[in-house]
Amino acid sequence: MTRPVNQQWLLTQRPDGPITSDLFAWHEEAVPEPTDGQVLVRTIYLSLDPANRIWMNDEDSYMPPVGVGDVMRGLALGVVETSRDPGFAAGDLVQGAWGWQRYAAIDAKLLRGRIPPDEGVPLTAYMAVAGSIGFTAYFGLLDLGQPKPGETVVVTAAAGAVGSMVGQIAKIKGCRAVGIAGSDAKCRWLTEELGFDAAINYRSDDVPAALDAACPDGIDVVFENVGGPVFDHILERINFHARIALCGLIAQYNATDPVPGPYNFHRLLYKSARVEGFIVVDFAARFGEARAELVQWLRDGKLNYRVDVVDGLENAPTAINKLFDGSNSGKLIVKVSDEPA
Amino acid sequence: MTRPVNQQWLLTQRPDGPITSDLFAWHEEAVPEPTDGQVLVRTIYLSLDPANRIWMNDEDSYMPPVGVGDVMRGLALGVVETSRDPGFAAGDLVQGAWGWQRYAAIDAKLLRGRIPPDEGVPLTAYMAVAGSIGFTAYFGLLDLGQPKPGETVVVTAAAGAVGSMVGQIAKIKGCRAVGIAGSDAKCRWLTEELGFDAAINYRSDDVPAALDAACPDGIDVVFENVGGPVFDHILERINFHARIALCGLIAQYNATDPVPGPYNFHRLLYKSARVEGFIVVDFAARFGEARAELVQWLRDGKLNYRVDVVDGLENAPTAINKLFDGSNSGKLIVKVSDEPA
Repeated sequence: MTRPVNQQWLLTQRPDGPITSDLFAWHEEAVPEPTDGQVLVRTIYLSLDPANRIWMNDEDSYMPPVGVGDVMRGLALGVVETSRDPGFAAGDLVQGAWGWQRYAAIDAKLLRGRIPPDEGVPLTAYMAVAGSIGFTAYFGLLDLGQPKPGETVVVTAAAGAVGSMVGQIAKIKGCRAVGIAGSDAKCRWLTEELGFDAAINYRSDDVPAALDAACPDGIDVVFENVGGPVFDHILERINFHARIALCGLIAQYNATDPVPGPYNFHRLLYKSARVEGFIVVDFAARFGEARAELVQWLRDGKLNYRVDVVDGLENAPTAINKLFDGSNSGKLIVKVSDEPA
Repeated sequence: MTRPVNQQWLLTQRPDGPITSDLFAWHEEAVPEPTDGQVLVRTIYLSLDPANRIWMNDEDSYMPPVGVGDVMRGLALGVVETSRDPGFAAGDLVQGAWGWQRYAAIDAKLLRGRIPPDEGVPLTAYMAVAGSIGFTAYFGLLDLGQPKPGETVVVTAAAGAVGSMVGQIAKIKGCRAVGIAGSDAKCRWLTEELGFDAAINYRSDDVPAALDAACPDGIDVVFENVGGPVFDHILERINFHARIALCGLIAQYNATDPVPGPYNFHRLLYKSARVEGFIVVDFAARFGEARAELVQWLRDGKLNYRVDVVDGLENAPTAINKLFDGSNSGKLIVKVSDEPA
């Protein structure tokens, strides 16, 4: 029998601006052998996320940068092929950050538990609603944003994987949900299919006027994914004691020069308001709680989501730019190999 | 008997940059008569604070701007001359925001209670340690900053009225206190008399290197009064889950063009850190708790403070600029009339 080959994307240099294919090198090698306490996983889906761009910089962030020459880091979902850890068995479906490769021998303790086999939702849901994306929306909105019924929640990159969850959870919690997105089609999706109360196309609408119209009582909670001028317009309209969950600043990830912070930073002072950065792993101890509630909402038909599936690991370096040019809609994932039958 | 005359400074135009005397007009009129539910107060001390500059702009902040033609707003301490409210009697010492005038007829419900006659601390202490200044330091540091023993607290404008309290309270709570101030004399006062662990002269020191030396374990809590480039150096060094109490942004109050927010705003995201604006009246319900503890620390010799007393209401418009050019040290107040014998 021919042994399968591992395929990997290695980071070969750090970006100076947008991600280009020449930052990565395709590498093939033998499939690794797991050692004691490890499992061998075969990647089914790879998650492409804006934060991947942060990890490519030579800068201390919430985790160390990806080393030059190392496999590009990324969240993934896969199936255990061989286990040398008593907690896992061949056939288990697992999630972890083993990155842009077809196979990985990974310490079992680095896996995020097992996906229950019997929840009755598609496997791709665990890359969106019932995985890190859903947890990010859930904890960022509910724990940091603390929305109360009747309050106005504004979310940027609202048609993105996280943003679209945030608005729907805001509606479940009885809030007014206002989304900001980059095309009329995305805006229609938000209001007509996801139940947002209003959506603003930041490319074509007069954003200040549209925010005034969409938020007649001001803004109580912000779920910020983008930064830049739109964020300043939002800060101009925050209410006293507003809460801003800072999830991302995608507008500046590709910047090569220092980017000024919001010009309306002083509004935090004027309005006794709060900005709090977070990453989903801050809440790792409570992922079970979030998953149970998210899956229930999904079964109840309260959460709608889209996945944008790119076929083949070889396309990851080009596909990731869909996150930065606004061309994706829904959770962007790469299908690396087939789901188990 | 000659009736005393009321003297007032009216705001006659809005500033375009620094405060100049020609923004105010001196006005004299009859001392007002209190109506039912009011008291007539004679001002003894007037507080000059950086926030006064915010109130002069035609911009919605945490309170409406001072109207053009109105008495300039300011916190004051005075004595009740006549009371038409059952809660107050002639001779009571009271605090309130009746502004830059010798006499005021003010609704009793707008006064911040009575100063206890028997606490054994100088009356000026209520303009500093045991008044809004002390409460600002107390709640900003303890409630928003939540310092834990052994953590590093950095405070800017550390030789100012609020900043000098913040560092001393941080020491009482077992923290490492690092102050940033604008002269070697101020820095010596912080370390030699107030017990700060380190002080940095932002005008002459290499701030990044000095912060590295003063904060070998990074920065856990920031009490920010200033903004600008020093704040960016601080953000560069915050630890995971740092808490930043945003009390002021004095570096930009006189700006005539939009001021960019901190270039290191993204550090909040990288470090799951929090910035929270506040004003002391957010905590009005708990002023009694703060005053009791602050007065006790004062009696125990744990809090040192300076007042910088300018004599005469007529000097208020020029004296206030001492807050912006760095020439004051300690709480800046104007003595308007004599303390009761």
